[in-house]
Amino acid sequence: MPGTGVLLLSCPDQRGVVASVAEFIASNNGNIVHAEQHTDEVEHVFFQRVEFELEGFGVGRDDILTAFSPVASKFDMSVDLRFTDVKPRIAIMASKQPHCLFDLLTRWRAGELPADVVGVIDNHPDHADLVEHMGVPYFHLPVSPGAKEQQESEVLDTLASLGVDLVVLARYMQILSPRIVDAYRSRIINIHHSFLPAFIGANPYRQAHDRGVKLIGATAHYVTEELDEGPILDQEVSRVTHRDSVAELTRKGRDLETIVLARAVRAHLEHRVLVYGRKTVVFG
Amino acid sequence: MPGTGVLLLSCPDQRGVVASVAEFIASNNGNIVHAEQHTDEVEHVFFQRVEFELEGFGVGRDDILTAFSPVASKFDMSVDLRFTDVKPRIAIMASKQPHCLFDLLTRWRAGELPADVVGVIDNHPDHADLVEHMGVPYFHLPVSPGAKEQQESEVLDTLASLGVDLVVLARYMQILSPRIVDAYRSRIINIHHSFLPAFIGANPYRQAHDRGVKLIGATAHYVTEELDEGPILDQEVSRVTHRDSVAELTRKGRDLETIVLARAVRAHLEHRVLVYGRKTVVFG
Amino acid sequence: MPGTGVLLLSCPDQRGVVASVAEFIASNNGNIVHAEQHTDEVEHVFFQRVEFELEGFGVGRDDILTAFSPVASKFDMSVDLRFTDVKPRIAIMASKQPHCLFDLLTRWRAGELPADVVGVIDNHPDHADLVEHMGVPYFHLPVSPGAKEQQESEVLDTLASLGVDLVVLARYMQILSPRIVDAYRSRIINIHHSFLPAFIGANPYRQAHDRGVKLIGATAHYVTEELDEGPILDQEVSRVTHRDSVAELTRKGRDLETIVLARAVRAHLEHRVLVYGRKTVVFG
Amino acid sequence: MPGTGVLLLSCPDQRGVVASVAEFIASNNGNIVHAEQHTDEVEHVFFQRVEFELEGFGVGRDDILTAFSPVASKFDMSVDLRFTDVKPRIAIMASKQPHCLFDLLTRWRAGELPADVVGVIDNHPDHADLVEHMGVPYFHLPVSPGAKEQQESEVLDTLASLGVDLVVLARYMQILSPRIVDAYRSRIINIHHSFLPAFIGANPYRQAHDRGVKLIGATAHYVTEELDEGPILDQEVSRVTHRDSVAELTRKGRDLETIVLARAVRAHLEHRVLVYGRKTVVFG
Repeated sequence: MPGTGVLLLSCPDQRGVVASVAEFIASNNGNIVHAEQHTDEVEHVFFQRVEFELEGFGVGRDDILTAFSPVASKFDMSVDLRFTDVKPRIAIMASKQPHCLFDLLTRWRAGELPADVVGVIDNHPDHADLVEHMGVPYFHLPVSPGAKEQQESEVLDTLASLGVDLVVLARYMQILSPRIVDAYRSRIINIHHSFLPAFIGANPYRQAHDRGVKLIGATAHYVTEELDEGPILDQEVSRVTHRDSVAELTRKGRDLETIVLARAVRAHLEHRVLVYGRKTVVFG
Repeated sequence: MPGTGVLLLSCPDQRGVVASVAEFIASNNGNIVHAEQHTDEVEHVFFQRVEFELEGFGVGRDDILTAFSPVASKFDMSVDLRFTDVKPRIAIMASKQPHCLFDLLTRWRAGELPADVVGVIDNHPDHADLVEHMGVPYFHLPVSPGAKEQQESEVLDTLASLGVDLVVLARYMQILSPRIVDAYRSRIINIHHSFLPAFIGANPYRQAHDRGVKLIGATAHYVTEELDEGPILDQEVSRVTHRDSVAELTRKGRDLETIVLARAVRAHLEHRVLVYGRKTVVFG
Repeated sequence: MPGTGVLLLSCPDQRGVVASVAEFIASNNGNIVHAEQHTDEVEHVFFQRVEFELEGFGVGRDDILTAFSPVASKFDMSVDLRFTDVKPRIAIMASKQPHCLFDLLTRWRAGELPADVVGVIDNHPDHADLVEHMGVPYFHLPVSPGAKEQQESEVLDTLASLGVDLVVLARYMQILSPRIVDAYRSRIINIHHSFLPAFIGANPYRQAHDRGVKLIGATAHYVTEELDEGPILDQEVSRVTHRDSVAELTRKGRDLETIVLARAVRAHLEHRVLVYGRKTVVFG
Repeated sequence: MPGTGVLLLSCPDQRGVVASVAEFIASNNGNIVHAEQHTDEVEHVFFQRVEFELEGFGVGRDDILTAFSPVASKFDMSVDLRFTDVKPRIAIMASKQPHCLFDLLTRWRAGELPADVVGVIDNHPDHADLVEHMGVPYFHLPVSPGAKEQQESEVLDTLASLGVDLVVLARYMQILSPRIVDAYRSRIINIHHSFLPAFIGANPYRQAHDRGVKLIGATAHYVTEELDEGPILDQEVSRVTHRDSVAELTRKGRDLETIVLARAVRAHLEHRVLVYGRKTVVFG
């Protein structure tokens, strides 16, 4: 039994888009199960997510984009077509800290993530045992001094050989070079351990402690060439007090990081995200 | 310059609804500025909110429902049509406590509520002076022992003479008889000072204190014949501790009550709410 | 290097308690590192948590209670003395659902829980492999029809043989008989998947869905003879909408359950909780 | 019937402080009703708030500081003594936006703020009528081009003539010169409409919109010479989405601003705040 198709559309705001898209689905005997739209009234851009049943749809899935192209051309649309019965392939990149890595793996094992986790890339060897026990291929790719470029080549080769659709940086702690960012544009999600744009860069919990804030945060964003400046997918905060040491902020922050990263990954996997400029539309 | 029309639609879930509605708007040279939909997959009910520009629309506003009736009939739809340039008329009913009453009046004066506040009905005389100073007609309708029915008749007369579209119970503290509930079905919003369905009935903050809960809440709901059982519009909670006395819970709760009631009233006034059974669809 | 001692005290509210306790510590050359107090002004009960350095303290740890007994007698105190360098021994009881179990185990491995996890008791066999891989003894004690009493005897034997200080019900899904509750009074923490006292009993997420609430919750409480009525340790909620099916509420609720249970277990392990009647004092 | 005394103490962390303070109270036949302490383990500073009954206390309120001076000297303490039956005198400074101003006035009228509001200073004339109707002296002190220094002199004169203890900037929108800041060190509370340190300076809601954040915030802080860098009293955030325009962020933010400012003012008025460096200790 087939799943659904998801059209992620954006175009200059203009009349008749909604009707034309709906007419395209209806005229092919389709049934829209979800439809959401947004208009950025400053930039005059229209966004839409249309999810429709593939069962009984009058056009085969390989021909849908071609059939849709007159509509796309008419409105000068960017079109992305996904199928919910095709599981995206995820690689998780981790470093010493285990919390985001194991949270994602536990959710995946529980059937919570509509994806296949096809590999874990780790620059420290610590998690090999448990990752492999959970049945996920493990790649130890350490960053030797002076050999970062070489390691990145190995990362790219590994991602390519695994056929990865989405890279999740689960507290990976290394800055990716433009080579990787560019190859996986809007397909690398990072978790930053602050409420961006506050506390960009290193040691955000120490920065937060020094500033005496009363809330700490975490931010999931797509990775771009500029550090911590990519489009934000999700954010969350937690209340702290004068009693919380840096260690305590770090511990409380871990819960934020796991939850925000998992929510962001899930939004991406459910094809609910459109990126434009440095911003996102995340449909509910 | 005219505003927009809002169609609030519900019908049995079936193919082609979205396309037919979009086609109706497009064929009349309309432009959809917002569209949201929801399908209750348990009850198989489809809900839609469609907001379209009246400027340049091919059908006069008085004729829209007639023009739309073929679509409505085909899909067995319930249809509600609103116009955003027609301000709903609100009456606020209050009792001794001022916080929700003055919060709503302050928001209204600041232009935050797309409505006209046409009267305040109060069963205590305390707020006459300030309400009148803010330019709102004030009606002191006390409930004398044994004369509740008479008071309710006066309330109904007052509401009728003011041409009220929405009644807001701003901690009114009286149970309305079915006579009033029925006359303003899904048009009376109450704020209950607990996280319903916990602590139904009297003294919820005392109940919360006795139970030792760690969060208190407030719930805005439409009033039905069953006490505190009407469809919920919005809820919010606030953290409390063992240090909080009943008086402190009451004080903290007031902030919840004002915010939740204001959010619910706003959702109603922006035509974002559909009621079905004892539940609501509140579009974002 | 020794840790600290923690005195958890409660007594009828009266003058001079704080000074007498402080004088006891000071006169033994002690240093108070944390002190918190609370007075229930309705019940007239005084509560205090005093944490002091053992290094250099003038009384050996086995003699502290004896040395303190004049103060305790004078004010008719209940006294509980803990040592932070003695790790409590935890048993986790689980059933089919893994999320709370593995969350606690992951936190424990990361050094987040000041405790030893000495065993997992499971009435389904599913988690044996991973639990043992994490180095924790695993006990499969299924509940056969008509043999619940027998299983409970095995549970009690297992807990006794492990020398357990705290039992954590990580979505165990079985009601414990008074025999177990009584043996581990105020030492069994359960996670209930609703915002108690709303939705007591079975299927709270379905109940929440039927009622149309806009927030769902989770509650950690000590287990007593009355179902879901024990003293509450912690609660948390999460926003939901009309779009959330029962399955989605269940998924979102899992995040609440893991976090609230972990926070409550941590508060207990850090000796920050005093129980009185059906309520708790949880110091910050 | 007299209220309570509150000692706000800070000193280098050392042994015996708690005992000495408790002994001082007890030896004067006092009764401690609340006591809280905190140790900054990085800076090695000890903080304490001790609240004790004045009824029956062995030292008259004018002599308490003298009687306490041996303790203060011994531990090199900073000492601040307050009396809860003496209401602090507040001046509110406002500009065009009314929400924080009227929220504070409404709370004050409802008896929620343990203070006297002795004046409103406004650099726009808009709120004169309602402020005076609420019985509060109103001072219109506009800032003419090139005459800011003169206006600040009038502000200082007005504050002095009113005998003001606390100045609350309720969206005052003017930067105060060091002259005023210095005269009311740690006694001027400002509300900034962002989650500091994100979006310092002008138009934070526009900055937030441009960055595409998923949460907006508000921060109450004491005013220092550096803009938006003073010690933070309280912060709160609210969820936003791609749908929220700058106007909508501004509207949602107003609710945050009123609540955070009111909480911060209340904490100050209840003598629960100690300032050190650029941080605060806010006792619960």
